[in-house]
Amino acid sequence: MSQDPAKHPTVGNAPDGIVLTSAPNGEPVDQATAAARRVVDALLRTDRTNANLHRVAEELNSIAEHLEEHAPEVADRLIDMWHGEGVTRHDPVTGPENAIAPPLTLAGRDDGYVEGDVTLTFPYQGPPGHVHGGVAALLLDHTLGVANAWSGRSGATAQLNVRYHAPTPLFEPLTIRGRLTEENGRKITTVGDIRTADGTVCVSVEALFIDKTVPRPR
Amino acid sequence: MSQDPAKHPTVGNAPDGIVLTSAPNGEPVDQATAAARRVVDALLRTDRTNANLHRVAEELNSIAEHLEEHAPEVADRLIDMWHGEGVTRHDPVTGPENAIAPPLTLAGRDDGYVEGDVTLTFPYQGPPGHVHGGVAALLLDHTLGVANAWSGRSGATAQLNVRYHAPTPLFEPLTIRGRLTEENGRKITTVGDIRTADGTVCVSVEALFIDKTVPRPR
Repeated sequence: MSQDPAKHPTVGNAPDGIVLTSAPNGEPVDQATAAARRVVDALLRTDRTNANLHRVAEELNSIAEHLEEHAPEVADRLIDMWHGEGVTRHDPVTGPENAIAPPLTLAGRDDGYVEGDVTLTFPYQGPPGHVHGGVAALLLDHTLGVANAWSGRSGATAQLNVRYHAPTPLFEPLTIRGRLTEENGRKITTVGDIRTADGTVCVSVEALFIDKTVPRPR
Repeated sequence: MSQDPAKHPTVGNAPDGIVLTSAPNGEPVDQATAAARRVVDALLRTDRTNANLHRVAEELNSIAEHLEEHAPEVADRLIDMWHGEGVTRHDPVTGPENAIAPPLTLAGRDDGYVEGDVTLTFPYQGPPGHVHGGVAALLLDHTLGVANAWSGRSGATAQLNVRYHAPTPLFEPLTIRGRLTEENGRKITTVGDIRTADGTVCVSVEALFIDKTVPRPR
């Protein structure tokens, strides 16, 4: 569902189930990033004795060189990537242009929650066969920020308190959600969790945000 | 510095400054992963109107296909990647074989701290020009785990409490450190922080770990 990028959707002004993140839109940069994501995953899966890995390295370096040759200065690129006031396309959790991002897609619900499903693979591994605890924290921190936006607020994380209840499995669909629960002046409290398909809460989080507008580079 | 992979170094048994993480060793898979990391970064920097992005996508998909064709089953790969009892090569923070990892290299010190320097770029961005708060949590969670190993303990994260004191800059060297501070039966308390070169503490963390041995797949 498309949105006016200049307007933060809120529970009050948007329909149920609106997508709050930038879904891949088929642009060449999204296609290239999806392919890079696939390479990152495949590099962790492939046979270590694959005799062609040296050539793979050469080819990837050649691609990187080409992309770097066509890259503007960092300051100019910063302005460009923060253009507009809506959701971004480059963050490490939901960004279709960031190969580090799974990417997670979050939708807003009428009850104030934002929610998304994701299945994580080897790049996000901590304990054997399970999600890295720090990756769970990363996904939740970002989800809470989107939950704040969904309620019409924004803020910088001041405290992030993560509780680990059960190991979070790789290779299984996980549901990640967040919801603003309290506003006290500039202080915003937001909670969230990560659950498996059978409803087991693996990780929960409560965070304190301080409402402040961070100016975008321009 | 090389280590016996079967032995966890501890403050008591290892010299000052021993490297606790797997540094890239020049193997083809490390070279290919370093090149993939460069592609991930360059994709976020390159000009969005680059007419060759469609071809870049094709080339990356072709590389991924080749790697996937030479990949063992997930269960077999899991056994292989967890071979040995020492530091791993595939985690998303220090792993030279994981293109998501910056990667961070951590060294142990005689005073019980583990410490490493890292400079982060666009893939790790949260607010404009600054490190994503969730990425800071990810790096710290992993560092605390290594700090536990450096003190001869290991455990699963039960609570991770992160405090954000100042925005953490991209494109500047950051120092990340952690240290086990308290042991109470199976409960382990470990602290850490991220500082800039001028000593500003941007993020601090205190975490509770529960000592338990997680069996490696075999």
